[in-house]
Amino acid sequence: MYFARRQQSLRAVLEKQRLDAILITHAPNIRYLCGFTGSAGALLLTARGATFFTDGRYREQSKTEVRNARIVVRPKSPLESASEWLLEKAKTQLRVGIESDHVSVAARDRLTSALGSKARLIPTSMLVERLRMIKDADEIQLMRQAAALGDSLFATILQTARVGVPEIEVAAALEYEAKKKGAQEMAFGTIIASGARSALPHGRASQATIQANGFVVCDFGVILTGYCSDMTRTLFMGRPSAEARRIYDAVLEAQLAGVSAVRPGATAAEIDQAARKSLKKIGLAKYFTHSTGHGVGLEIHEAPRLAATSQEVLQPGMIITVEPGVYIPGKWGVRIEDTVLVTETGHEILTHTIKELSSC
Amino acid sequence: MYFARRQQSLRAVLEKQRLDAILITHAPNIRYLCGFTGSAGALLLTARGATFFTDGRYREQSKTEVRNARIVVRPKSPLESASEWLLEKAKTQLRVGIESDHVSVAARDRLTSALGSKARLIPTSMLVERLRMIKDADEIQLMRQAAALGDSLFATILQTARVGVPEIEVAAALEYEAKKKGAQEMAFGTIIASGARSALPHGRASQATIQANGFVVCDFGVILTGYCSDMTRTLFMGRPSAEARRIYDAVLEAQLAGVSAVRPGATAAEIDQAARKSLKKIGLAKYFTHSTGHGVGLEIHEAPRLAATSQEVLQPGMIITVEPGVYIPGKWGVRIEDTVLVTETGHEILTHTIKELSSC
Repeated sequence: MYFARRQQSLRAVLEKQRLDAILITHAPNIRYLCGFTGSAGALLLTARGATFFTDGRYREQSKTEVRNARIVVRPKSPLESASEWLLEKAKTQLRVGIESDHVSVAARDRLTSALGSKARLIPTSMLVERLRMIKDADEIQLMRQAAALGDSLFATILQTARVGVPEIEVAAALEYEAKKKGAQEMAFGTIIASGARSALPHGRASQATIQANGFVVCDFGVILTGYCSDMTRTLFMGRPSAEARRIYDAVLEAQLAGVSAVRPGATAAEIDQAARKSLKKIGLAKYFTHSTGHGVGLEIHEAPRLAATSQEVLQPGMIITVEPGVYIPGKWGVRIEDTVLVTETGHEILTHTIKELSSC
Repeated sequence: MYFARRQQSLRAVLEKQRLDAILITHAPNIRYLCGFTGSAGALLLTARGATFFTDGRYREQSKTEVRNARIVVRPKSPLESASEWLLEKAKTQLRVGIESDHVSVAARDRLTSALGSKARLIPTSMLVERLRMIKDADEIQLMRQAAALGDSLFATILQTARVGVPEIEVAAALEYEAKKKGAQEMAFGTIIASGARSALPHGRASQATIQANGFVVCDFGVILTGYCSDMTRTLFMGRPSAEARRIYDAVLEAQLAGVSAVRPGATAAEIDQAARKSLKKIGLAKYFTHSTGHGVGLEIHEAPRLAATSQEVLQPGMIITVEPGVYIPGKWGVRIEDTVLVTETGHEILTHTIKELSSC
């Protein structure tokens, strides 16, 4: 992993923001910068070095995992350790950035009173998240592996999704298979939404049994070596009517249009518009009630967001989802989603499962 | 559910703290006070009423779930809706409590600038969490059901834990069974820690295969109707040696001593000491490296914490875990955990799985 390089990129940001140090407390950001995967840690990055703080539970694990940072283990919370350490080391008042989206008011107040005049805490936002938007070669490789594991699970859905089977059983079988194949955990609560529930964009698998003559939206992701996969396919139970097919084909066309628009230099809004325009032509755009996609990596939802208003410019190395959907309340819904890498010249789809309508 | 009564209890606290209102943003606290189970919500409680804010995605769900609060659905974040609503309604400057452990610095700054002179934000801590420590009759019933589902999963462990099987397969089978039986999800990452990994107090199930002549620590919990179960049992693979049996028996004795000490009026520290004292007698206390237990309910870890220093007094209706463990680094570990209700006269164990050493 390119920890040294990532830390250098963050140092360049510190310099621009005239910060002497930054205290990283958001777990995915800590992992990104020094490799620690546990739950109790803090990383203090200065112009000269990096120091990682944890407690006794993680003594062994931090030795194994943490790179490019000295390790300080103390019998107190990582934030307390970090502020104690700053008090010991700081010769003048330091400007210390904190991750304002991830530090609670209570934690900030404790830090402020512990540090007294030794540090001025400066709220920062998205500094590491913006670096994380552009995946490096290591990350792209891990994202490929996660996506491949996700792809391999579609067969389990085809084997278990049957009329009369509860949605939750399909999800449970999928998750069992995911873990057997090495997933640490699921990236989010598996969505298996059948019948009228397919019209719920976030219809987590429930005890409802799958009905004949309806769609089943299957949206799932694994975490493999820390990185998330994300994919949606929609099945039809039985022989799709002409209307069902029309809706499915419309969503598929919108999804292909969205993916086609993915290239360096395009804005997130352009991807969103490409997908939406395709649905507008046939009067279905009003049923597409969410944004077109989101970045994915160490977190299932990360920057950039592919919203109608986002002027974020796509750059090589970004990995995003493209996932339009059409939801007719009380009746049915369809969503199709791929995970897509922005390349130097265009894009590469990381999820390879077929998108033709599968009837079960 | 006793939503009205819970809200009244919180109003009594507001009055004591001279707050005109409190803005609840921590999801389990929102659920506790008005029943909403989704991810995007905020609840504003005043002396006179309660108002729940959400966005369009949760229009239907909030109608079905939310009780004892008017519902406001607006196309923006719940916090933005709440501050907009406060701006419209507030006639004088209000003292509005925020949950300082759960509101980020960035969110508080946005609130402060949106509200201007109309409100003064007052950091509060643990106000709802302290109410939640004492479970009401509805909650005790739900905790019983969750614990019973947890108990029923032990059979799956006995069926799947075999020498040569990867830990993760045992976890996957357990989780599959849990979902089939109605669990919404697991309360935390299932721990199946075998061989030397059993000495890791938080040894999440891994690809490591179960070895002969070692312990397997199995710590797992489900979420059923929002409430968490939590239980640990430790198996031995093969015929336990005298030393293995000595360690197991010591942990069991400590666990029984801890449970026996649970009664109204006892302090959390006394429970901790009861368990620790039993291990001290035979020189194993130094290998018991974590606290004895924690409250459990809508969250897997909630107040009170059963730490060596906690002077929290146990009260009827509290539900806590009692879970001493002994961990010999690099060699093996044993932990035994029950979920225990503090009753009017003593305690009632909610987890009923046998605690005699099971050899597989």
